[in-house]
Amino acid sequence: MLLDQHYLFAPGPTPIPDRVKAAMNQPMIAHRSQEFPKLLEDVSTRLMPVFGSENPVTVLAGSGTSALEAAAANVIEANDHIVVIVAGAFGDRFAAICETFGANVHRLNIEWGNTCKPKQLEEFLQSIPNDIKAVFATYCETSTAILNPIKDLGAVVKRLTNALYIVDGVSCIGAVPVDMKGWNIDILVAGSQKALMLPPGLAFVAISDTAREVIRNCKAQRFYLDLNRYLASYETEKSTPFTPAVSLIYGAQEVCNMFEEEGFENVIKRHQLLKTMTREGLKAIEIPLLTSDEDASPTVTAVRTLDAPSKQMKKMLKDKFAITVGGGQKKLKGEIFRIGHMGYCTPFDIIKVLGSIEMTLKFLQGTNVLGKAVKRAEEVWMDHV
Amino acid sequence: MLLDQHYLFAPGPTPIPDRVKAAMNQPMIAHRSQEFPKLLEDVSTRLMPVFGSENPVTVLAGSGTSALEAAAANVIEANDHIVVIVAGAFGDRFAAICETFGANVHRLNIEWGNTCKPKQLEEFLQSIPNDIKAVFATYCETSTAILNPIKDLGAVVKRLTNALYIVDGVSCIGAVPVDMKGWNIDILVAGSQKALMLPPGLAFVAISDTAREVIRNCKAQRFYLDLNRYLASYETEKSTPFTPAVSLIYGAQEVCNMFEEEGFENVIKRHQLLKTMTREGLKAIEIPLLTSDEDASPTVTAVRTLDAPSKQMKKMLKDKFAITVGGGQKKLKGEIFRIGHMGYCTPFDIIKVLGSIEMTLKFLQGTNVLGKAVKRAEEVWMDHV
Repeated sequence: MLLDQHYLFAPGPTPIPDRVKAAMNQPMIAHRSQEFPKLLEDVSTRLMPVFGSENPVTVLAGSGTSALEAAAANVIEANDHIVVIVAGAFGDRFAAICETFGANVHRLNIEWGNTCKPKQLEEFLQSIPNDIKAVFATYCETSTAILNPIKDLGAVVKRLTNALYIVDGVSCIGAVPVDMKGWNIDILVAGSQKALMLPPGLAFVAISDTAREVIRNCKAQRFYLDLNRYLASYETEKSTPFTPAVSLIYGAQEVCNMFEEEGFENVIKRHQLLKTMTREGLKAIEIPLLTSDEDASPTVTAVRTLDAPSKQMKKMLKDKFAITVGGGQKKLKGEIFRIGHMGYCTPFDIIKVLGSIEMTLKFLQGTNVLGKAVKRAEEVWMDHV
Repeated sequence: MLLDQHYLFAPGPTPIPDRVKAAMNQPMIAHRSQEFPKLLEDVSTRLMPVFGSENPVTVLAGSGTSALEAAAANVIEANDHIVVIVAGAFGDRFAAICETFGANVHRLNIEWGNTCKPKQLEEFLQSIPNDIKAVFATYCETSTAILNPIKDLGAVVKRLTNALYIVDGVSCIGAVPVDMKGWNIDILVAGSQKALMLPPGLAFVAISDTAREVIRNCKAQRFYLDLNRYLASYETEKSTPFTPAVSLIYGAQEVCNMFEEEGFENVIKRHQLLKTMTREGLKAIEIPLLTSDEDASPTVTAVRTLDAPSKQMKKMLKDKFAITVGGGQKKLKGEIFRIGHMGYCTPFDIIKVLGSIEMTLKFLQGTNVLGKAVKRAEEVWMDHV
């Protein structure tokens, strides 16, 4: 049967728009040429509203984890005390990075599937006698599909500590509001392959003036991920210290065009709509969800697979409908699957995945809910047109 | 006038073949899907002959420098003694990386524009009383356009030390012969944007069994560039520990197709031809070259700019003929420009750049050498048809 594409609903990498592909296919340029600085400056400054940053956004060649490591390795020296909110696999990864570089990591463990409440952070910070160098939070914890209340947590960090507030925005920046200054964020990192509609291979770091001073004075060993080198190269020649991933940066320029044409406010609203359509549709056919509506991310939805049919659903979606969803990670392996709905994703895509789930349920357990989830999603959509 | 492309003769990034662009435009896939391991295994194993490696080649998301750092950070612990052959800017960069991570670096400084002779290395190694953990050499030193005698240097390393032999092949792998086992190479690194015909953003590390043991036991701090994580992920699931640059890896698969269709022996011969055409053509019009024929790399040629017209040549090539060549780096800034002829480069491209240099000379100093360099290059070409 003609299902000639992979329909990609993983929580990253996400589909690439044709116009972004075309932009990446522009003739290669040398990064020491006259053209490259214009390209880099254009992208770094036009991403500022997307990152809610007052400074141009730093662009690295690497995956999201390279940006997480850059955030750690440019701030943390051996024996520094840092607090990491661990609400899933990516909080856990950041803690592991910090431990690798010799920090004393205080983990605030949150039950997977929940968000960190400001009160929890407040009590945790008050329980630590040491000076805290940095507090780390994931904005969207991809592994559990929740969105932490970054603004409110930032207010707690600001009120109780002098720590830098570092936020992992890998799986939501480009789909959610953010205001680094207003929310007290010092370092905000993202990857290209999620809501930013690009292939993987670029990582982004937005840096506050306060963080910049800390980075300048940090004595930790680093070379490829030394942000001082990137900041200096950008300032003096609008370039990068090491060969940049030119084609992906061309793609990022086209993504900026797309954001500006749609209006970034509307990009954010669209993701809210995609979230609500997905959740309401699934609820209408009694598919159990991992998270509450309030905690859930607008970029990814986690479906529980408690009973046998749900367990087989991920495989059948792939085999019969060419739809790829994400599996559960770490302690949620086999317990959930995850539907990514971020970046180059429209309400029609949600109809597509909900319809396929309806048909899958009929195949797997004979339950006839055909059209029911789609109906509910259409109702939600119509409220927003 | 219709010169609607940039004609890119920088020593990296280099032009991308249309079929490689098309391959990179394939629908995005999730790296935790069934499809990705097949792609990665295909590329990692088909690159083995290109790297002269007995093991699958490890693929990182990052620029060439990330692979250099990986080679250092996975082998070198604080206070280890290492020898770095510094024949230009990239040897210097590797020494700087090693110093960053606390090594005692012994620099064997070679006059820029020359290669390191085996005898020089032999004497230098004999002068060092300490146990040497690693010896580092650049295969093609891009900044000076020379090709070090990696095989002969490897024999010296093997004979005189128990050190690992680490080779930077960034600006020549994919254009030159290499035999890791036969030449005693333990770690060989490359970047995507040179002779491998890809955009920048992938880095490659080929690792011998001996190096692997050292990497396994190395206690240095590292996370994103921890090769043990990459080797383990490849072995257990043919995947990568962090999100891979999927589109570039699709591109690498098409590059493997191209290498196999042309025959890798012929790829190597083509680069020899491109070198000889360039050098003989330039000599025919008395353009001074930085290096001897014997020391020169088949991937890049360095032109001296001792007199005023040569100094202006780089700018005029760009302004009148849309040709980008590379400038001099560090201590050769303003002293040379560099013509890259690697990767997706044919004899016709050499005719193009030589013809433009002829016209530039006429514009700049009235010297009429029109057709003279091209004639000589055609003679060289015809000898090889």
